[in-house]
Amino acid sequence: MKKKELPRFLYGGDYNPEQWPAETWSKDIQVFKQADINSATVNVFSWALLEPQEGQYDFTMLDKIVDNLSRANFNIVMATSTAAMPAWMFKKYPEVARVDYQGRRHVFGQRHNFCPSSKDYQRLASDLVAHLAERYHDNPHIVAWHVNNEYGGNCYCDNCAAAFRKWLKDRYQTPDKLNKAWNMNVWSHTIYDWDEIVVPNELGDAWGPEGIETIVAGLSIDYLRFQSDAMLNLFKLEKRVIEKYSPDAPVTTNFHSLPNKMVDYQKWAKGQDIISYDSYPAYDMPTYHPAFLYDLMRTLKHQPFMLMESTPAQVNWQPYSPLKRPGQVRATELQAVAHGADTVQYFQLKQAIGGSEKFHSAVIAHSGRTDTRAFKEVARLGHDLNKVGPVIKGAKTTAKVGIVFDWSNFWALEYVDGITQDLRYVPIILDYYRQFYEQNIPTDVISVDDDFSQYDLIVAPVLYMVKPGLGEKIDRYVKAGGNFVTSFMSGIVGPSDNVYTGGYPGPLKDVTGIWVEESDAVVPGHRTNISIGDQEYAAHLMCDLIHLEGAQAIATYANEFYAGVPAVTENKYGKGNAWYVGSRLEHDGLKKVIDRVIKFSGVKPLVDQATPLEVTKRVTTDGQELYFVLNMSNGSQELPMKFRGYHDLLTGRVAQPTLKGWDVEILQS
Amino acid sequence: MKKKELPRFLYGGDYNPEQWPAETWSKDIQVFKQADINSATVNVFSWALLEPQEGQYDFTMLDKIVDNLSRANFNIVMATSTAAMPAWMFKKYPEVARVDYQGRRHVFGQRHNFCPSSKDYQRLASDLVAHLAERYHDNPHIVAWHVNNEYGGNCYCDNCAAAFRKWLKDRYQTPDKLNKAWNMNVWSHTIYDWDEIVVPNELGDAWGPEGIETIVAGLSIDYLRFQSDAMLNLFKLEKRVIEKYSPDAPVTTNFHSLPNKMVDYQKWAKGQDIISYDSYPAYDMPTYHPAFLYDLMRTLKHQPFMLMESTPAQVNWQPYSPLKRPGQVRATELQAVAHGADTVQYFQLKQAIGGSEKFHSAVIAHSGRTDTRAFKEVARLGHDLNKVGPVIKGAKTTAKVGIVFDWSNFWALEYVDGITQDLRYVPIILDYYRQFYEQNIPTDVISVDDDFSQYDLIVAPVLYMVKPGLGEKIDRYVKAGGNFVTSFMSGIVGPSDNVYTGGYPGPLKDVTGIWVEESDAVVPGHRTNISIGDQEYAAHLMCDLIHLEGAQAIATYANEFYAGVPAVTENKYGKGNAWYVGSRLEHDGLKKVIDRVIKFSGVKPLVDQATPLEVTKRVTTDGQELYFVLNMSNGSQELPMKFRGYHDLLTGRVAQPTLKGWDVEILQS
Amino acid sequence: MKKKELPRFLYGGDYNPEQWPAETWSKDIQVFKQADINSATVNVFSWALLEPQEGQYDFTMLDKIVDNLSRANFNIVMATSTAAMPAWMFKKYPEVARVDYQGRRHVFGQRHNFCPSSKDYQRLASDLVAHLAERYHDNPHIVAWHVNNEYGGNCYCDNCAAAFRKWLKDRYQTPDKLNKAWNMNVWSHTIYDWDEIVVPNELGDAWGPEGIETIVAGLSIDYLRFQSDAMLNLFKLEKRVIEKYSPDAPVTTNFHSLPNKMVDYQKWAKGQDIISYDSYPAYDMPTYHPAFLYDLMRTLKHQPFMLMESTPAQVNWQPYSPLKRPGQVRATELQAVAHGADTVQYFQLKQAIGGSEKFHSAVIAHSGRTDTRAFKEVARLGHDLNKVGPVIKGAKTTAKVGIVFDWSNFWALEYVDGITQDLRYVPIILDYYRQFYEQNIPTDVISVDDDFSQYDLIVAPVLYMVKPGLGEKIDRYVKAGGNFVTSFMSGIVGPSDNVYTGGYPGPLKDVTGIWVEESDAVVPGHRTNISIGDQEYAAHLMCDLIHLEGAQAIATYANEFYAGVPAVTENKYGKGNAWYVGSRLEHDGLKKVIDRVIKFSGVKPLVDQATPLEVTKRVTTDGQELYFVLNMSNGSQELPMKFRGYHDLLTGRVAQPTLKGWDVEILQS
Repeated sequence: MKKKELPRFLYGGDYNPEQWPAETWSKDIQVFKQADINSATVNVFSWALLEPQEGQYDFTMLDKIVDNLSRANFNIVMATSTAAMPAWMFKKYPEVARVDYQGRRHVFGQRHNFCPSSKDYQRLASDLVAHLAERYHDNPHIVAWHVNNEYGGNCYCDNCAAAFRKWLKDRYQTPDKLNKAWNMNVWSHTIYDWDEIVVPNELGDAWGPEGIETIVAGLSIDYLRFQSDAMLNLFKLEKRVIEKYSPDAPVTTNFHSLPNKMVDYQKWAKGQDIISYDSYPAYDMPTYHPAFLYDLMRTLKHQPFMLMESTPAQVNWQPYSPLKRPGQVRATELQAVAHGADTVQYFQLKQAIGGSEKFHSAVIAHSGRTDTRAFKEVARLGHDLNKVGPVIKGAKTTAKVGIVFDWSNFWALEYVDGITQDLRYVPIILDYYRQFYEQNIPTDVISVDDDFSQYDLIVAPVLYMVKPGLGEKIDRYVKAGGNFVTSFMSGIVGPSDNVYTGGYPGPLKDVTGIWVEESDAVVPGHRTNISIGDQEYAAHLMCDLIHLEGAQAIATYANEFYAGVPAVTENKYGKGNAWYVGSRLEHDGLKKVIDRVIKFSGVKPLVDQATPLEVTKRVTTDGQELYFVLNMSNGSQELPMKFRGYHDLLTGRVAQPTLKGWDVEILQS
Repeated sequence: MKKKELPRFLYGGDYNPEQWPAETWSKDIQVFKQADINSATVNVFSWALLEPQEGQYDFTMLDKIVDNLSRANFNIVMATSTAAMPAWMFKKYPEVARVDYQGRRHVFGQRHNFCPSSKDYQRLASDLVAHLAERYHDNPHIVAWHVNNEYGGNCYCDNCAAAFRKWLKDRYQTPDKLNKAWNMNVWSHTIYDWDEIVVPNELGDAWGPEGIETIVAGLSIDYLRFQSDAMLNLFKLEKRVIEKYSPDAPVTTNFHSLPNKMVDYQKWAKGQDIISYDSYPAYDMPTYHPAFLYDLMRTLKHQPFMLMESTPAQVNWQPYSPLKRPGQVRATELQAVAHGADTVQYFQLKQAIGGSEKFHSAVIAHSGRTDTRAFKEVARLGHDLNKVGPVIKGAKTTAKVGIVFDWSNFWALEYVDGITQDLRYVPIILDYYRQFYEQNIPTDVISVDDDFSQYDLIVAPVLYMVKPGLGEKIDRYVKAGGNFVTSFMSGIVGPSDNVYTGGYPGPLKDVTGIWVEESDAVVPGHRTNISIGDQEYAAHLMCDLIHLEGAQAIATYANEFYAGVPAVTENKYGKGNAWYVGSRLEHDGLKKVIDRVIKFSGVKPLVDQATPLEVTKRVTTDGQELYFVLNMSNGSQELPMKFRGYHDLLTGRVAQPTLKGWDVEILQS
Repeated sequence: MKKKELPRFLYGGDYNPEQWPAETWSKDIQVFKQADINSATVNVFSWALLEPQEGQYDFTMLDKIVDNLSRANFNIVMATSTAAMPAWMFKKYPEVARVDYQGRRHVFGQRHNFCPSSKDYQRLASDLVAHLAERYHDNPHIVAWHVNNEYGGNCYCDNCAAAFRKWLKDRYQTPDKLNKAWNMNVWSHTIYDWDEIVVPNELGDAWGPEGIETIVAGLSIDYLRFQSDAMLNLFKLEKRVIEKYSPDAPVTTNFHSLPNKMVDYQKWAKGQDIISYDSYPAYDMPTYHPAFLYDLMRTLKHQPFMLMESTPAQVNWQPYSPLKRPGQVRATELQAVAHGADTVQYFQLKQAIGGSEKFHSAVIAHSGRTDTRAFKEVARLGHDLNKVGPVIKGAKTTAKVGIVFDWSNFWALEYVDGITQDLRYVPIILDYYRQFYEQNIPTDVISVDDDFSQYDLIVAPVLYMVKPGLGEKIDRYVKAGGNFVTSFMSGIVGPSDNVYTGGYPGPLKDVTGIWVEESDAVVPGHRTNISIGDQEYAAHLMCDLIHLEGAQAIATYANEFYAGVPAVTENKYGKGNAWYVGSRLEHDGLKKVIDRVIKFSGVKPLVDQATPLEVTKRVTTDGQELYFVLNMSNGSQELPMKFRGYHDLLTGRVAQPTLKGWDVEILQS
């Protein structure tokens, strides 16, 4: 059944009135209304209240909460409360608790620590959700269901081991095929029976920090696939229950982190009716990092998404939580909108007085006062969204550049034991993303399964794992006129982390027109350079020694015994072009390369003029072009000439020629 | 029954002759006498020798040791040997061993690793002490009993869990009240039955380093309270047994560390007949740190204390153990006396040849020689104490400044998850202590339960936890003319770590006349300043943004968007004054503030003249004023003019006008 | 029975064709032959293939592999496959897996994780080896047997505990004697029954990083002795089985690491028919470190050894794996030969496509190509060895300097808790080794049990543990005219880590003619100097304050309160001399001292002229002197005058006067 859309641009967030006396709630609503807040997410962590003992349900409190919000005409995002299990459940069914990477079972406490393979957990969660869905499905204020919370974190228990063996049997059919896939004749690992497989934990084939060190990468990567699937099954289980009662209500779970390594969001996206995301950029994170994450979230379904959580002022759990500067919260929230968010939701609407997040900010702070800087900023944004939300909602983003991000590759690459210990996936992807961000060229962050043909340029750095068919897909794309960028540590292994023999970059050799004979590690304290024209730039991490087999060099190494050897290459291939960047280049060096790529590919920035302002475009459902111009810094910046005279939706006036620190304009011509 | 006083100023320390053949002992006594050593602590770790198997006692060795010392007319501090359990006990009763924060039970080995809730341990320890007390209570050379050793370190076993639940039931009566106290509706933590409570360990609601990270601070703080109480019960158990046989002998256990976080010494002090303390300042520790600790120990009972352990030369267990420079040991030991010690005792009188402390120095070193620098310094101090000890013993210290130190606050503050990860209690307390130390203004280090009215000035930085009644007590104190200093991160939570709503600093708002709207973290690599007059000083850690609600600003921020906002305030309140310091100031900036506080409060230094020398005063039982003047550095320093012509008890001559490196004078006018 | 010699100079390495289809193998052989490879080590990790379930053997694959190599006339080193157990064995007999230092049993995975005390492991390994030996003993191509692989790593399980108690009973007879040896009256550790002994793990008497922290050093050191012995028994078990079938085949196991701390190679050497060693110097390791290790390996049996593993290009498991520079691999391999290797073997001949070492280089790389720099270098070395191998094989090395290296001392010294945490054994030994290395003076790296009389100079720094008789042996050696160097932290303890009383350096006091009264730690950020003549040099780590008792000072401290106190001493003793170096001197300062020692001792460099080239000498079985001249750097160096006109075996021509980066010459006059 087709799912309903969100009825309006939501402004609100997580709200936990069960932590306060009911007589305080009407005051809460009053305060929220002062800030034009129109929605609340409830019931995220109330299982213990809803089900004080197995099978005994008590909805008194939640009824009151829902009633209170409904009477105030709030939209409600109804969560299922399954992310934190009650104490009695740990006592009665210890196996609902996760076993950690060291083999230790968790005890009651924390949250997000259920075992995805526990039948008891599944049954109890499913029962709870059935009761919730049955009770509340016909409340018209409920506009979406929020399953569980921030899935993630792996379990290594015996139940998971059993489920994993079953998962493997489905994938590989016979132990023999598994042995081949995981190359098990190495170190006498050959197995003959499924139950000889043990899960990768610190005392077996994986030994270092979780997710980083492994003896058998095939095993470890498959375990991550399995765990992501096992958690996805939990999501689907709850979703099916909800849909039984409420077939047309959109169902989502909130994605998170930078991004979360443990869950394959691209695989999960299919099961989400709408993507929702919790955004907590750290104070010292460059502004292109959240932009990248928003583009990733938007691209998951090529649709607007919900900004499900964000902080209205300070977080508490990062090492240092400086105050957001005046205007910064508004700019930060609108950055998400600029990249495709159709909601702005906070964690949290009212600040807890106890618990580990009591110093996380909220719309209603501990002081309860509204004459605060933080509240005024929240209210100002509420008024803004009240005005522009209806116009923005549903507006689409178009990009001609696709940056490839792939979870299997994320896993495989960070298990690599070789060349250099400093190899990490996201920072390298961000190197490339930043190039387009700083030139205000819209990008999608796509999966390897996305349709490449809609892009003029595909950028796939460190594409270490190339699954069957992907090499051919890239080949076809370039031959047909596409432009393709890849880098060192690409084309190395297949889906189970076995190396493609015959020379690196394996299935990408033809399209790139090169052969990488060997790779040097750049060691600490050492500087290796490349030359482009008469300019030198630093090369970090590792240096591929490239043989041209059809390609031409556009950069060469400037020192070491391989001075003169190609470092960056360009290959005309069919009607298209492919570039190979053989090292991790410093920003300016990479800019030289990417500028050339951009020129060849014909992709265009949203504004021709160089500017430190961030510019994005969304096109409304009725075809209006909205330019988001954001000053993501403390200092003033000039509006690009192109936008002079444009109309600013936020002020209802003509665009100001100067944007002060953290100013935002939403412009129409 | 009133306890006996120590019969004289003790000079001695831990002595373990059971590690050597009996024929070597008389030589030991000879050597000790060369150094005017008059006492020994024995039997600290001999359980395995005393009770080779359960219920079979063998006092042959200890009888000989006691006899040997008695014949030499030594005073004996008799320890109870319960801090290290024999191997057979671990084998027979594995539950006597502590379970660690990861849930792992200890095996035989080490020391200080008994479970405080083990009935077997309690029974066996109690039996041992009964045998000891019965056997030795009428030996007149025994001047004090020393229970166990350096209590500390928590257990997380099932027996402790059971005892904890009982402790909680006594404190909270019902699960419902507990839920409220710990704010358990957060994250679905609501419990319905006492046995749903699990102890805070790494796999539950506490997850980071022990004592630092927690989800439910109420739980974690209560667990620390419980463990401190459980160990205190062990102490009391032994004490009761001793008193059965020896009702008038003073009983103590040696406190330790900088200070020990795990034991609430203020609560424990009530049960001690005399405070004893083990002092091991590290080589790179500023001299005001041990001074602070001595003042804390003295203030615990407002009486002189025993310096129960200290090193006669080098320690072995610190990362680096440089030699004490010539004279340094003497100055270091006399610093304790200057602050209230009525004994000087070493660990150890004779150096072990094996075991983990074999490179810890001793009066009798491995060489056995007395022609060493270290022995000569020990002997010199012995001669000194022989002369001045009788005068000093019992002399009192008077202070008009009370610096507040509170164990619950220590625990609560360091669990805080927010603003900045660098928040630690002791360093901030030391910032303030140092101000008075460097001006030679005597201070007590008081608890929140001490009588405030005897002080002209109370200094309570980062008084994060304000228990019921404390806010009012401070109010009354200031209204009545007292002077009060507090700081950022004060007045935030009640006894279970729930935040006071209505604005920070909660119960301290009236007395300080301010409201703190928000707090900025000072991030690494960033400099924030405050202005006092035309001078700027660095502000570290965090910056409170203060609204004046009656107070006046005496410092404002000099940069950031909050330039001009009050940073330090002063409030006339009733007949007194209250200051609030909104950031962690660098030493010079804080000095500016404290100088003003000192002026207003009318507290006086012992010597008006600025001097790098440390000066304290003790007043003897017959009313003589003794000034301790210590040069705690390698370089020479001039004696302040005030003391010229004073009489030096140590030399029996007029005070020298120059103190060479590590020189000490004990002066009378 | 006398063992056969290796039939020729082996060039080859580990070869695992079981990881590839059999049809690829003949191509492999072709490639190997291009590089003059003449041998292969097989069957290192094939247990799971050989014995798919208990007692069912399948040699089909191995038969083919052996046949393939035999037909190609390769020499075969036959491994026993016992270093990695099959999955079924963990399932069936969980106790075959090691228990770690935290008490956690390993699960299937990794390798080298069998428990040495497991009867099941012993039985199963023994059966496997019997089948192998029976099947292959008469294959004439098999030139050596390679037992297990890189033994090392301790087990802390109950079976080991039981075996340890038995081992202790053999050593100490009674608990009482054990108590005395371990000085167990400290901290109430006295035991009365053998089963009161628990193994040193993290939850008992050892608590920090494995092998570094302990309460009872006697226990911890004995446990290391026991584990080394227990593993040695495994080796002997397999060896006996092989010898039953093949009494004259040389049997070895490959030693490893820098060196491996966990195995007493000097004790093990007696059971090896030939020493074999795996050499993996890190990219940032000074070249004298592998030289030291080769000298150690050669000295173990005072015979040439096998270089059993080394990398033909890059490793993968070090933090950074830069490429070896052109020529560097060849120089690195020939360095081993220069110090006594009679084989050059690689790990590995063919690069795996999966598993944790897939990025470890191989003769046949992933590309399969032979037109690579790496393959060409391997082939060049093959041609070289083909030419010079027959001449070199069996050539002997003679040294007049013996540097003492002792495993018990290694263990004991690094358990020391005192003075400074930075005390480590190998770096200090290397300080001294480097002095001789840089002057091209041949050294043996000897055990304390070697015959001292064959050396003109014995160097034994940080000889902390001096077992009974060793002091006397040194005395006799010096009295008879020997020259002896020792240092700080020497002569401190006996075999169970109990301190020698009476003054440091205990049994070395007479020979050194000194008494060390105390030792200062050199703390971070602090500089202490010594003076030699009018020059000052830095003293690191710790500074002994020395009294002369017959010796004379040849250096004194230049600052601190002990300025002027002797820092380095020289003592004429009988017909010889003894030096004591009281601190860790910087390189130049130590050079001053050692230059003097060299002059007095009369030991001679191989070439008088100072040169950055490395020079060694081997004397062939027919008495020819071969000088190895190695340029172990990137830059060019001049050949010393002495060698001008010499004949270079490698080129067959007269020596080149300049050695380019990484050039090697093997010269005859």
